[in-house]
Amino acid sequence: MAKNVGILAMEIYFPPTFVQQEALEAHDGASKGKYTIGLGQDCMAFCTEVEDVISMSLTAVTSLLEKYKIDPKQIGRLEVGSETVIDKSKSIKTFLMPIFEERGNTDIEGVDSTNACYGGTAALLNCVNWIESSSWDGRYGLVVCTDSAVYAEGPARPTGGAAAIAMLIGPDAPISFESKFRGSHMSHAYDFYKPNLTSEYPVVDGKLSQTCYLMALDSCYKSFCHKYERLEGKQFSLSDADYFIFHSPYNKLVQKSFARLLFNDFLRNASSVDAIAKEKLGPFSTLTGDESFQSRELEKASQQASKRLYDTKVQPTTLVPKQVGNTYTASLYAAFASLIHNKHSELTGKRVVLFSYGSGLTATMFSLRIHEVRHPFSLSNISTVMNVSGKLESRHEFTPRKFVETLKLMENRYGAKNFVTSKDSSLLSPGTYYLTEVDSMYRRFYAQKDRACIACENGSATNGH
Amino acid sequence: MAKNVGILAMEIYFPPTFVQQEALEAHDGASKGKYTIGLGQDCMAFCTEVEDVISMSLTAVTSLLEKYKIDPKQIGRLEVGSETVIDKSKSIKTFLMPIFEERGNTDIEGVDSTNACYGGTAALLNCVNWIESSSWDGRYGLVVCTDSAVYAEGPARPTGGAAAIAMLIGPDAPISFESKFRGSHMSHAYDFYKPNLTSEYPVVDGKLSQTCYLMALDSCYKSFCHKYERLEGKQFSLSDADYFIFHSPYNKLVQKSFARLLFNDFLRNASSVDAIAKEKLGPFSTLTGDESFQSRELEKASQQASKRLYDTKVQPTTLVPKQVGNTYTASLYAAFASLIHNKHSELTGKRVVLFSYGSGLTATMFSLRIHEVRHPFSLSNISTVMNVSGKLESRHEFTPRKFVETLKLMENRYGAKNFVTSKDSSLLSPGTYYLTEVDSMYRRFYAQKDRACIACENGSATNGH
Repeated sequence: MAKNVGILAMEIYFPPTFVQQEALEAHDGASKGKYTIGLGQDCMAFCTEVEDVISMSLTAVTSLLEKYKIDPKQIGRLEVGSETVIDKSKSIKTFLMPIFEERGNTDIEGVDSTNACYGGTAALLNCVNWIESSSWDGRYGLVVCTDSAVYAEGPARPTGGAAAIAMLIGPDAPISFESKFRGSHMSHAYDFYKPNLTSEYPVVDGKLSQTCYLMALDSCYKSFCHKYERLEGKQFSLSDADYFIFHSPYNKLVQKSFARLLFNDFLRNASSVDAIAKEKLGPFSTLTGDESFQSRELEKASQQASKRLYDTKVQPTTLVPKQVGNTYTASLYAAFASLIHNKHSELTGKRVVLFSYGSGLTATMFSLRIHEVRHPFSLSNISTVMNVSGKLESRHEFTPRKFVETLKLMENRYGAKNFVTSKDSSLLSPGTYYLTEVDSMYRRFYAQKDRACIACENGSATNGH
Repeated sequence: MAKNVGILAMEIYFPPTFVQQEALEAHDGASKGKYTIGLGQDCMAFCTEVEDVISMSLTAVTSLLEKYKIDPKQIGRLEVGSETVIDKSKSIKTFLMPIFEERGNTDIEGVDSTNACYGGTAALLNCVNWIESSSWDGRYGLVVCTDSAVYAEGPARPTGGAAAIAMLIGPDAPISFESKFRGSHMSHAYDFYKPNLTSEYPVVDGKLSQTCYLMALDSCYKSFCHKYERLEGKQFSLSDADYFIFHSPYNKLVQKSFARLLFNDFLRNASSVDAIAKEKLGPFSTLTGDESFQSRELEKASQQASKRLYDTKVQPTTLVPKQVGNTYTASLYAAFASLIHNKHSELTGKRVVLFSYGSGLTATMFSLRIHEVRHPFSLSNISTVMNVSGKLESRHEFTPRKFVETLKLMENRYGAKNFVTSKDSSLLSPGTYYLTEVDSMYRRFYAQKDRACIACENGSATNGH
């Protein structure tokens, strides 16, 4: 069986267009700090009319293949996680196939995985399993997480974002799975869903969603710890991992989540909880589960008690989610990209525990281990290729008014046919794909900035038109 | 690594309501034989207002677990393949979770796999890979294929159908994967897709879809044969498998597909092609690929040349697809269920080659091997539990007029909220789930005939309402 299977390389793409949360607060007439401190967010990226989940994933995949000099023929599996539905039957994966078809490779397994923000994790776990299975043919896997998170006007709107992440999967990876340490929690809930088929916007119950998230976190952590303890013969606590990465709809929930794990450690009497935490959390030890999710005092006390650990084990993972926003399936991996960006030189040997959550609901906590491997798959090269700082710095700020106008236009375009876009690629970096047209049969056409119209030509050719 | 991983058990459910294709022909004013001979179809099942893809899969899963006495705690992975979108974010898998939650099992990986009719195969391959991977925890996997295929009035309408199939996955299976013999063909095409988000009906180009299907079949077969030959050191031909099972939008395409494989064997000069076939196909040996897809004469000649082999290797797989119709993700497995139903006592040691196709497009040809295993997972017991004859015989025929009325009602209900159904379960068998209500928040409620309202109660409980 293949060993140390995991993530060999990563590329991240987010739109160059964003709005400041502070400006949005003022524009929305919200109290000062509601988005920046209340939600813990700095900026929010969004797609303009020339970008969507397909263009973003075309960009991320081609960029990863080019920068790592991976021949498209070397890919044996391609899976996409997304909750942004452009077509209810045709997968986003098939929109990416022209990249491979033009090199004569059509023998690529995998489709799209769907459940809210969890689809990317499902795709990733599937891809890793493939490489460990008897079906593996020796080629690389490729996982793409792509989403555009937009909300109707109201309190949820500042929790949007947009990004695509591509990950190359294979054996002997610098970021490998500790597959036996894994806990999932799956349940039937209506915390966030998209039943209104005519609208891109979800139906969301923010308070319920937060409770579902934290209950799923509790359940996954219990299961994760149980499996760890059974296999390792000792209790698991926060001290047994170097970093914790959370699905990040907004940063405040990440803070609450890590605090919640500390409270879990305290209740389980784990050895790592320090005296100060014991003192702060003591008064809450007799709360029922439900009470503990409702208690503001516990929330406050546990955040205070976990602050120091948070700064070390979580804060380095929060850059992109705070700057780009909630990117749904890409969110967890955008947080992971932040960790690589911030700490790539210090990660060898480290254990990273990740918590993936998708409303509805599906959640998994899993463990990765970092290894030193040779170029081009070294963490320092992954960091260089992703160029997070460069991408963040070269963005273009939109005013809230222009942001709202853009979303209005996109509302009208959602599910529409027979239109051409502005084809304005002036804000995009060279190599970025963008949407040019949706024809009368809803067929979508894309061009690549400063390149030949590859997707476009291929689209035509393979469509038989 | 787990050995002989594959399908341990199956259950099939289709609505008890159907229309005769012969009656539909007359009602539609189509020429006599257009649907029955032209398409090769006998009957078409459809959901009335009390059934949908969720109710059908609830029925199939609970029935499988009960009949095989599988404790819901023994399931470690649950994956759904479907192209019938009820919610764009919340997976069908989460609607099935109450079955497991009420037994205290929420640690179940897997979500929904999406690409047209291929999603079920993607789910199945993912589940098998999980069991062969280091992530496997020793429990069973469960794969559900569920779809309701409906078309706008017009030539595609008689190619509808509806069904759900549940498959239990594990090692030492009576139906195991020969994982190394597998060829996929994935490409960007617009042969059938669902871009109109407000309608349940697809956009479909029947002629293009047939060409895409047959081109994908060619490509998969080439790749399959290549891998077989590399590993086995000898050419593969139709004589090397006992049965061939095809995704079945309508039976005529299955006939054409098998004929096409024979033509492939002939072109590759495979030794198995008999003298009559050589003579009949000789005149077409110089056609280009494109010409060969367009040639009616070749189609006719190859169907004649393959008729005898078709009757032996394909016909036993066609019962349910002809009687129930196109069931999208469930179609291939409904054909497999037909084979088990017809031949369960003669299958030991046999090789079965399957071709899965999903428009858009994604396709895989793969190989299964049948083994004798002990009760309850013996093929004869699988056949008994599925009770295909009993289910077909106890159906209720609708007139075309009543069928059209039902589809009209369903058109209005698609994507709607705030309604109660008739709750008329009189045509349903005991144990069948049915839709009772969609509330003002689009939340869906189901009841089980002659049982307590389990899904309903669970739905409420886990929703926190």
